[in-house]
Amino acid sequence: MALIVHKYGGTSVGAVDRIQNVARKVKGFVDNGDQVVVVVSAMSGETNRLVALAGAMQEKPDAREMDVLLSTGEQVTIALLSMALKATGCDARSYTGTQVHILTDSAHNKARILDIDEKKMRADLEAGRVVVVAGFQGVDEHGNITTLGRGGSDTTAVALAAALKADECQIYTDVDGVYTTDPRVVPEARRLDRITFEEMLEMASLGSKVLQIRSVEFAGKYNVPLRVLSSFEGKEGPGTLITYEEDGMEDARISGIAFNRDEAKLTIQGVPDQPGVAYRILGPIGEANIEIDMIVQNVASDDTTDFTFTVHRNDYDKALAILQKTAQELGAREVNGDDRIVKISLVGVGMRSHAGIASTMFEALAKEAINIRMISTSEIKISVVVDEKYLELGVRALHSAFNLEEAPAAP
Amino acid sequence: MALIVHKYGGTSVGAVDRIQNVARKVKGFVDNGDQVVVVVSAMSGETNRLVALAGAMQEKPDAREMDVLLSTGEQVTIALLSMALKATGCDARSYTGTQVHILTDSAHNKARILDIDEKKMRADLEAGRVVVVAGFQGVDEHGNITTLGRGGSDTTAVALAAALKADECQIYTDVDGVYTTDPRVVPEARRLDRITFEEMLEMASLGSKVLQIRSVEFAGKYNVPLRVLSSFEGKEGPGTLITYEEDGMEDARISGIAFNRDEAKLTIQGVPDQPGVAYRILGPIGEANIEIDMIVQNVASDDTTDFTFTVHRNDYDKALAILQKTAQELGAREVNGDDRIVKISLVGVGMRSHAGIASTMFEALAKEAINIRMISTSEIKISVVVDEKYLELGVRALHSAFNLEEAPAAP
Repeated sequence: MALIVHKYGGTSVGAVDRIQNVARKVKGFVDNGDQVVVVVSAMSGETNRLVALAGAMQEKPDAREMDVLLSTGEQVTIALLSMALKATGCDARSYTGTQVHILTDSAHNKARILDIDEKKMRADLEAGRVVVVAGFQGVDEHGNITTLGRGGSDTTAVALAAALKADECQIYTDVDGVYTTDPRVVPEARRLDRITFEEMLEMASLGSKVLQIRSVEFAGKYNVPLRVLSSFEGKEGPGTLITYEEDGMEDARISGIAFNRDEAKLTIQGVPDQPGVAYRILGPIGEANIEIDMIVQNVASDDTTDFTFTVHRNDYDKALAILQKTAQELGAREVNGDDRIVKISLVGVGMRSHAGIASTMFEALAKEAINIRMISTSEIKISVVVDEKYLELGVRALHSAFNLEEAPAAP
Repeated sequence: MALIVHKYGGTSVGAVDRIQNVARKVKGFVDNGDQVVVVVSAMSGETNRLVALAGAMQEKPDAREMDVLLSTGEQVTIALLSMALKATGCDARSYTGTQVHILTDSAHNKARILDIDEKKMRADLEAGRVVVVAGFQGVDEHGNITTLGRGGSDTTAVALAAALKADECQIYTDVDGVYTTDPRVVPEARRLDRITFEEMLEMASLGSKVLQIRSVEFAGKYNVPLRVLSSFEGKEGPGTLITYEEDGMEDARISGIAFNRDEAKLTIQGVPDQPGVAYRILGPIGEANIEIDMIVQNVASDDTTDFTFTVHRNDYDKALAILQKTAQELGAREVNGDDRIVKISLVGVGMRSHAGIASTMFEALAKEAINIRMISTSEIKISVVVDEKYLELGVRALHSAFNLEEAPAAP
């Protein structure tokens, strides 16, 4: 018998039959003797409907009232799922964030969970009930309704699992796990049985959007075993377990290849190489609310430096204009940029302790005559920027070079 | 400066522009220096949508979960109205039933209000804010969400007005007041400036559905001045004040004529006249969950009695079958009935102290050759049952006989 937290997103509860499908799935666990807490999102489409109504009322809808409004989406789902569970003969009880006292700070629309009172849930579980909790929402110390921001239901699930010391937190989605890369680009992409929290963070932030980043951080912090799996009938399977690094993982393992199509790069050349120059270049960009991704700086020969960074493609024109102004002020030689580039990243804890991975990567790209425009590395990833047209070719070359289509040998 | 509670029903908040219209109306009061608490229902159609979803989940949806589900309807409206108020420059804050602590018993779907904590509302009003409260919902002592049953938002408004000792509770509807009778039947029907709580109860229960009966009882009990008026632009006016009986009302005043098209009558004749016979006749009807409206018993000449009662037309066949069975058991002579009858009622506190009203009524009907099939009287009303075909003729004759189209002389 295990205590398991399930989480079902908007698509998984998007219609009457989908909710009934979730009820059957949960009942399977209960029949198996498990205790189950279910966290649900709003039915797909509902949040957008409510946001549109709010937009019709007020140009910039009040943050407190927005949370009152949006939290109704999950409240509808918890009631419906509880009914569906009862219809299958499974006793169940629903709770809003307020009722189960998911205490958050007062930062409306992006609140952070501070504490959870697990007593009510524990009593229901002991009484043989399934506990159904509204995701995405909480309550602040003054009794105001708060929300955790888009995708916050994942965070709710992990936080409940941590508070209840659950055996596992299972995130049901429309994919059956985390893949070595996007199967639409590499048909041979393979589902990973497990991945570390850190790798998952790199995969997620690099564009393989399966889980909300915050929930992964949260799970790592509280040591909650997290599993991603499919909620759809006919796609059942073990999913991917996101877990701590273990001994058996210390081989030269690459978990996957992430990529991001939305990048643009900007370069300022011939900047006098003096202290504070990086701040003088990037400060105005940050003040314009443009997020910077990669940053690379090279020292040139003549006491000047070349400085390159990437931004979201939508921000390219704005960033270029700012940079040209900065270049004049700094007396830089030249500004140029390219908004037809992409980023490809190799992710894996294995690269920490193993040399040769970077060279294998660069070799594989060179074989395909793909010119690398920028390189950046971290503990568990190597990212390269290449021309947009090489994205698919590059990802496939790397997938093959690291044999990602084959499952690793058992440790 | 007055403290006023407004209540807007589903039609009045049924669309974006309607909610904006409500915001403008409320702002008018605020600009006038009034403190305003607004109670709102779910947007029209929303409750039906939710009920349909629940029905798809569970044949007989769980009562607790139904309340969790339905209470989202009003929660959406309070958030939207608060945004709309802020957009007009009017500071506002929304509260769910739980947040403003509308404490009820635990009778899900038909809970009764036990207590209201008015401190939060009072603080907001003092701070110059409009307080927007979700109607129809409350919370029980265990933190479960409850609802007051359909139309319960009227009750919420009256209860808040009582707790806050408001100067007036204004119920905004799609009609501009209470009329002497249905203007679709009598075009000369006149809006009443005032009506007593008791008269309003008779008018409401007799089919002039403007306010939920419970809210009127509640207002009478706590002495809350209640006003019915229109929420629609271009139909502004003083509405109808529902109030205590006052001295000036002691003249022979008839307030209005109510009628009910949904009646059917059943008669059992020649029943041995002995103690307990009424119970033996009506007991089985009640056990079948059939509501009985009027009851009339006449003693016949031969130690037997004739017994007549009315039920809703939909229950006629069922009631007839039960009565035929009872007749056999009691050795009654005959059972007959008629499901093509209607009830017309004259309502007015004036009839308490004035003779001659009944005779004027019967005379007016006789002049039109309308045969009276049944008569029943109470302190403030006289009801007659007539053939269905005479409904409009009868109502018009009475409206004219009592000069209801003319406003009464000022007292």
